[in-house]
Formats: sequence, structure tokens, C-alpha cells
Amino acid sequence: MGFPVVGVVGGGQLARMMAGPAIELGITLRVLARDPADSAAQVVPLDPSTDIGSEDDLAALRAFARGCDVLTFDHEHVPTEHLRALEADGVVVRRGSDALEHAQDKLHMRRRLTALGVQCPRWAEVSTLDEVAAFGAEIGWPVVLKTPRGGYDGKGVLLVGAADEAQDWLARGGPLLAEERVPFTRELAALVARSPHGQAAVWPIVETVQVDGICREVLAPAAITEQHALSAQQVALRIADGLGVTGVLAVEIFDTPSGVLVNELAMRPHNSGHWTIEGSRTGQFEQHLRAVLDLPLGDPSMTAPYAAMSNVLGGDIAEMYSGYLHCFAHDPGVRIHMYGKDVRPGRKVGHTTALGDDAEDVRARAQHAAAFLRGDIDG
Amino acid sequence: MGFPVVGVVGGGQLARMMAGPAIELGITLRVLARDPADSAAQVVPLDPSTDIGSEDDLAALRAFARGCDVLTFDHEHVPTEHLRALEADGVVVRRGSDALEHAQDKLHMRRRLTALGVQCPRWAEVSTLDEVAAFGAEIGWPVVLKTPRGGYDGKGVLLVGAADEAQDWLARGGPLLAEERVPFTRELAALVARSPHGQAAVWPIVETVQVDGICREVLAPAAITEQHALSAQQVALRIADGLGVTGVLAVEIFDTPSGVLVNELAMRPHNSGHWTIEGSRTGQFEQHLRAVLDLPLGDPSMTAPYAAMSNVLGGDIAEMYSGYLHCFAHDPGVRIHMYGKDVRPGRKVGHTTALGDDAEDVRARAQHAAAFLRGDIDG
Repeated sequence: MGFPVVGVVGGGQLARMMAGPAIELGITLRVLARDPADSAAQVVPLDPSTDIGSEDDLAALRAFARGCDVLTFDHEHVPTEHLRALEADGVVVRRGSDALEHAQDKLHMRRRLTALGVQCPRWAEVSTLDEVAAFGAEIGWPVVLKTPRGGYDGKGVLLVGAADEAQDWLARGGPLLAEERVPFTRELAALVARSPHGQAAVWPIVETVQVDGICREVLAPAAITEQHALSAQQVALRIADGLGVTGVLAVEIFDTPSGVLVNELAMRPHNSGHWTIEGSRTGQFEQHLRAVLDLPLGDPSMTAPYAAMSNVLGGDIAEMYSGYLHCFAHDPGVRIHMYGKDVRPGRKVGHTTALGDDAEDVRARAQHAAAFLRGDIDG
Repeated sequence: MGFPVVGVVGGGQLARMMAGPAIELGITLRVLARDPADSAAQVVPLDPSTDIGSEDDLAALRAFARGCDVLTFDHEHVPTEHLRALEADGVVVRRGSDALEHAQDKLHMRRRLTALGVQCPRWAEVSTLDEVAAFGAEIGWPVVLKTPRGGYDGKGVLLVGAADEAQDWLARGGPLLAEERVPFTRELAALVARSPHGQAAVWPIVETVQVDGICREVLAPAAITEQHALSAQQVALRIADGLGVTGVLAVEIFDTPSGVLVNELAMRPHNSGHWTIEGSRTGQFEQHLRAVLDLPLGDPSMTAPYAAMSNVLGGDIAEMYSGYLHCFAHDPGVRIHMYGKDVRPGRKVGHTTALGDDAEDVRARAQHAAAFLRGDIDG
């Protein structure tokens, strides 16, 4: 057994942030990127003959996988049938196709979680206006409609106050997922890593702050009761085990007075875990590599009492490097991560992290740096 | 001002360990390596037309420097005249040629430190047997002889009990540095980063444990009085300022009952600072990048009360990856870093780090993992 090669399908910032831990562990990281300018492709040695291609192209996936000991992913968009073909070829695919289906298809996910006894928002599969109307009549309006596949960052979600508002989406064909609008007190995320031999490690539960469906901030640990934190961790562990997840699993959760309800799943490192890079003894990107390689998992405990992460979204400033001068002079402890992506309005191009002994203080520090970098404030 | 390109002359593990922090900061790291299989060259995208070459070849240095905003180094072996030529071309070279001379030439270093009022072992420049005899008669035998250039890891150092034992070394021509053998109680290292605008940040003083002239362990912080720690930090800051160092400076120090004496200098990230990757809020490799880019420096404070690092030296086991299973299962908190180097007896191929609340415990944990990986123990 020599040092392994891990191939990541996808060249985004999640693959990019695996590169540092892979270098430290002596593991070779390869990425299959659509373009050499992609976030991860900029920083990893590329073989243009095998490492540039689309996840939709089975031949490209096969050529890439040939040089990898383990295949993993920085997104959920690889067609399941391609994963099954690779598995049939003998490629070690982590997470596997069975687990992935639950992250790719929200109807599939709801059915499976319900079968596992995991508390979810009340839901139904709807294909007609009558079904939407019946669901709304039962659980009350408004109702949340979701396309089963392809949604992210608030896309693919529609709030309808009456059945006829669903007409356009239903007309596209295929069933939709209808869910109750949960009167949550806050949004949480549970992050767990699970390895093929069944070991799992769970990070502290965090609060995520969303604006217009996009994660803006993550606060660790979440200011919730120990009982809610424990049940959120247990839910994530149960899902990881029940779905046979390998690697990192992020579970987006609604906290309600009566308990925690599962909103969404992501089977990969996740925005809600970026704080772990410095905030945990083992960050999510290293843990993901250890998990997909079936190495024993690392200690997920925190390196400081509180951590806060703010996403840097594209704003008015196209070139953010000059903001480093102010941010680092203002706060020698703030951490800045940039993804090598062109700035476009609203696009996640980086994040900031602060650690410390006071929850409000670390939040303000991470916010300040992110706001300064994008150009929202002058100092 | 866009995101800069930092070029590192040298493809060893020090350049390699700059890669992760560069990726996180969005800074492009390039390396000039002698061979594509070199430690850093394995993990950084390479342009074979400019990035493979020798530090002895001015044309290669020039071609490499053309694509870099700042040039830095992972060793001291670039000829000073080449650095001067690059500086004359307008290349931003950090540390500059003036500072480097003090790290390249030990006689030069001793003269300059003495002029700065820094406490050093008693020393003399010796070119003849009579001069060696006179020095030994004055300070007592044995005497330490050092070649002014090229020594490292115990090479270039000779302990002589009488003048005639110096005959072979003197016969090679050129003066030698003669030093008293210091009756030190322990060896320390002071690590400081300094930026061109004069900001400096110093890490806690560490104890280094050498075996046969090779660093085997580093313990942070050193178990010394606050007064000795402060004077060691002050010495490092005075040297960094006095020599105009930019980037990381490591000062190897003898601790004696009467105070601290400077042994050696290295003007780059250093083995004595590997523990800072996880043990400090800002690790030495990130800090070095920030310093050479003249960015404000980061917080050097520790992330745990104690940190210990053990070097992994080549031993009986040629392939160390399989040792990860035991090491990580045995200790979920231990950190393993591997440099992608072929195992040869005594060669530094990686290091381990442990953090915690008890100095003896973290030392034992780092030792255990390093010893297991190299094959010294079974479990």
C-alpha cells in the first residue's frame, strides 16, 4: 500500500480546499475540472489529457478514474448511471451511487429519511394542482415547493400562497416536493464524517444564517440547548449510517421549539463546515480525505470556544487582494480564504473566519473582514 | 494590485509547506525546483520551461523570476552574486542579498552579530594551526571548528581537542570559524517574521532536541524562565531588524545558566517552526508569505498550551502510508505531515505534531507517531 491518489470530480472551491490537507498528508490530489481556470484546477498539477472534462461525460470520468485509487466529489451533479458504470468498472467511488441518490433527488431523500424515522417537515409528492391544493388544505398555506433535482443556494425553491401559483412549475413536468413552511427559530447544520468501515465523527452543531437562500454566516457552536444539539448530532449520525454515506455529510436542520427537523442533505464538505479549517483540530477537508480513504478519523473538537465564518460574496470590488492590508492590520487573528474565482455579484468567492472567547466578538470580526473585502464598508 | 505570484527558489519540503497557505490566501505559488519529483514540485502546477532549474544558474533564475511578483527561498544556497544580479534587474528579492550573506557565511554572521551587540559563543577567525592553538589556549579545549559556508544538520562542524586535529580542515584553504564549546543546558530556537515595512511577530521560544547534529524534536513553549524566553525573543527581533531580514528568521540559541547565546541563523521557515502549522494561530509558512508580500503579520499565539513536533527520519520502512492506520487509530489528535520524499536512512521525510494540556503527554504522542512511522516500534 503506497500513498494513494484521490481524484475529485469537480473543480470548485470545495476541491480546492482539499488540496492543502492532501499536501500535508502526502496524498496526491487530482481534480477533474471543466476548465483549467476553475478554482481547484488553478492549484493542483493537471494532466490536460485526463483532468479536463465534464462530469456528464462517462468516457471522461473513466479516463480520469483510471489514475485514481479513490474517486470523490465536490458536488452532487454526476449522473447516477455514470457512477454505477464506474462502480461496475471496479472504481472505488465514495460516496457511492446509492448514497448519492438521496442527495440528488429530494423526493428520494424525503422517502428514505421518513423510512429511517428521521423527523422532517411534513411533505408530499405533488404532480397536479389538486394535489398541491389538498396538501395546502391539510397543512396550511403557504406551502414550499421544491424541484427534486438541481436546486442550490435558494434556486429550485418556490413559496406558494395558493395552489394556482404552482401552475408554471407543475407544467414543466415531473413531480415536485411539497413541504410545510416550518416556523423555525433558527437554521442549524450538523456535519459528520463517516468512513467505509463505519467509523463516524461529528463536529459541534452550528447555526447558519441565510439571506435570500444563500448561506452568509456560520456560528459555532450554535446557541441551542444541549438536548437539541445532541439530537441534531444523532440525526446526522443516523442518516450517515442509514444511507451508507462515506466522506463528509452535511445535514441542514430547522430548529423549532418542539425539536429539530431535517431540511436538506449534502454529501461532501459543505459551506457550513468551512470554519473547521482553523476552528477544529481536524478540518472538514482533511476529514473528508481520511474518510474516503478509510483512514481513522481525526479529532473534531474546537480549537477555541467560539468560531464564526462569513462568506465573501461578490460585490462592488472586482479585486479583493488590496483589502488584505486593512483586514490583516485591523485584526491579526482574522483568517481569509479566497477561491481564485472571478468576482460576480452575489457569487461566493471566499470566506473569512474568526476564533475567540466571545461569540459576538468573533461574529463581528468575521463579518467585518468579509464586508470590507467585498466593498460594503470603508474601514 | 491583483493577487500576487510568489516564486520560491528551491523545491524542498519548506516550499511544499508554503503551498497550502498560498492556496487558502488565493496567492499563486510557483517553485523553481531541480527536478519535477522534488517535494514541492510534486504539488504545485509547474511550467517545465521556467520552473525546472538550478539555483546556481543565473539564466534559470532570471527566467523564473520574470513571472513572479516576489522571489523567496526555501534554502540559503543561491549564490549572492546571482541575487545581486536579480536585484539589479528590479526583481523583488526577499530576503535580500545583504541579509542572506549573514546566513550563508558564518564568519560574516559572527562579525555582524558581534557588532550588533548580540551575545554569541566566543569565536575567532582561524587560518593557521597557530591561530587554532592560540584560540584553544585562550578559551580552553575542545574547540568547535566550522566551515563558514555550506554546513547543515551537523555537517561542516568538527570538534578538536588539540590544534593539530585541525590540520586537514585548514589544508582545504580559506579561513575557518573557531568557537568555544558552550556548556549549554539546552538548545532553544527563536522564530520571528519580519516584513519590509518593519513589522515583526515572534512565536513562543521552543526547545529543540538534537541527536547527532540533527533536529529530532521541538517542544513549545520551552520550559525556561520568562526572563530567558524574553531575552531570546529580543535577540531574534534585534537580529531580524539589524540584518534587515524579510520573511521568517530562525535563530538557534544555546541556553546557559548565565543567559542565551546565538548559535546559528536561518533566513527562511525552519524545522524548529513546523509545530506552528497547527500549534499557532498563524503558522510559519503562512507568516512567511505574508511577510515577503509586506502584508500585515498574523497572530502567532498558540492554539493549545503545549505543542510537540517530532521529525520522521528515514528508517527501515520504505513506505510509511500504512503506518497512518495505527497512528490515527491510536491518537485521533496526532497530526502527520509527509513530504513526498523517498525514504533514505536518516533523511527527514516528514514530521508529526501533537497539541494538548500536558507537556510530557504531547511529547510522547508526537514521538510515538514518528517512531511508529519509521518502524522503530510495533504499536
